[in-house]
Amino acid sequence: MARILGRIYKGFQRLGSLSSTQTPLRHPPPTVSVRGTTFIRTMVALPSLFSSKPRDFSLPNSSWGSEMMRLYEHYNSQCEVETEGGEKQEGPWQRLPSYNRLLKYATGGVYLSKIIQSKARLFTRNIRDPGAAFEYVLFVNSEEQKCICIFQAGHLLEGPPGHVHGGAIATMIDTVTGTHATILSGPVMTANLNINYRSPIPLGSTVLLESSLEKKEGRKTLISCKVTSSDGSKLHTETTALFLSINFSHLLLGE
Amino acid sequence: MARILGRIYKGFQRLGSLSSTQTPLRHPPPTVSVRGTTFIRTMVALPSLFSSKPRDFSLPNSSWGSEMMRLYEHYNSQCEVETEGGEKQEGPWQRLPSYNRLLKYATGGVYLSKIIQSKARLFTRNIRDPGAAFEYVLFVNSEEQKCICIFQAGHLLEGPPGHVHGGAIATMIDTVTGTHATILSGPVMTANLNINYRSPIPLGSTVLLESSLEKKEGRKTLISCKVTSSDGSKLHTETTALFLSINFSHLLLGE
Repeated sequence: MARILGRIYKGFQRLGSLSSTQTPLRHPPPTVSVRGTTFIRTMVALPSLFSSKPRDFSLPNSSWGSEMMRLYEHYNSQCEVETEGGEKQEGPWQRLPSYNRLLKYATGGVYLSKIIQSKARLFTRNIRDPGAAFEYVLFVNSEEQKCICIFQAGHLLEGPPGHVHGGAIATMIDTVTGTHATILSGPVMTANLNINYRSPIPLGSTVLLESSLEKKEGRKTLISCKVTSSDGSKLHTETTALFLSINFSHLLLGE
Repeated sequence: MARILGRIYKGFQRLGSLSSTQTPLRHPPPTVSVRGTTFIRTMVALPSLFSSKPRDFSLPNSSWGSEMMRLYEHYNSQCEVETEGGEKQEGPWQRLPSYNRLLKYATGGVYLSKIIQSKARLFTRNIRDPGAAFEYVLFVNSEEQKCICIFQAGHLLEGPPGHVHGGAIATMIDTVTGTHATILSGPVMTANLNINYRSPIPLGSTVLLESSLEKKEGRKTLISCKVTSSDGSKLHTETTALFLSINFSHLLLGE
């Protein structure tokens, strides 16, 4: 698993470094037209803001409640195990780091404007105030082809009074299943989300998302995902999610 | 249409005023246990912050681009029409106001804590910086049983580089179809969202969501929704959304 993650990680890094070394900053930026819409095409190094050490949003912070911490420690303790000889080695689970820009790794991109490009932030990490919105951490288990996400839903995610917005739940499901599909199949795009909402999630509570591979066939990766209460006793949603493999450079370079 | 909306509006107002006059602020707040979870139950008037004139987020602001404004004016001009005699009367479309708390209307609620209750904000209106996240306005047409939403996707909604997060699109679909179902059937909860993603939405662009009633049967309301480019030429997503009628007081009062 770590090897796969390592490859993905290095692939993204390579993309980033390639793009930043091969194509220096140019003025004015080149444009590209996709189905009648003119985009600014950028293959430039981002400001040092992004090239220095970025904040990893999936590490504990002061807003994490006891349930979030308990579950984090449960999975995190299984990321490294000790052999009988006292050596440390990879455990069954691996924690995934999380940043507020995909462009940390891949500095290419096709944007409608330079302003949008410079200000763009990952939807699930767009609020810096700890605990206010999406607090979550993902762990993957390659042996079991599973992905786990511990999610604490902050006060800015309200839908029905006192409960999490259905769209915020869908957002976490898309995030977890999409990450899982990417690990299993490389770059993908969401083709279908079919979400059954069984019971509402109280605002402020911590829930578990668990995704499993159902099927891989050609370009298709089918993932199932359950959202349950943190002790697993209550089912909140059940989902099937279909992803299609894509050539990432199409999206990234507008080619 | 306006009559229906008026009834809903007055119903919410009545709920709010009833709850705030019948149950004054008490310390400590009463608690209620729902399936093993203890909530703070509040039936109190919210601070004057919410009882004075709230900001209507669905009115134009400086961040709205030309496409957003053009479509807004197109539908807004059909909200009031002039008769042959020169009198003004309701047109086929009605604009829906939009606030950042449901509790503007209904001051009851069941929350895990008083802090969460006081800080809770509607997910789609949780960022005050104009243009940064969800800019949208809904219009309803009772004659055609349709709902239209004009949506400009801000830079904080990024998923794939340069494009809107699938969860942010799902959030707008849930918002539009849920509002439509509520107008048609009274209080509802989302039971199923089945979203087919056909083509990604460039970050910063303006798109149209159009929802239509498919079927009403007992407690079920089935709505379909398309997301297209602002000129309707490009299909981004197709969705069916199922809603179940609920007794709103169950959710609101924890009873």
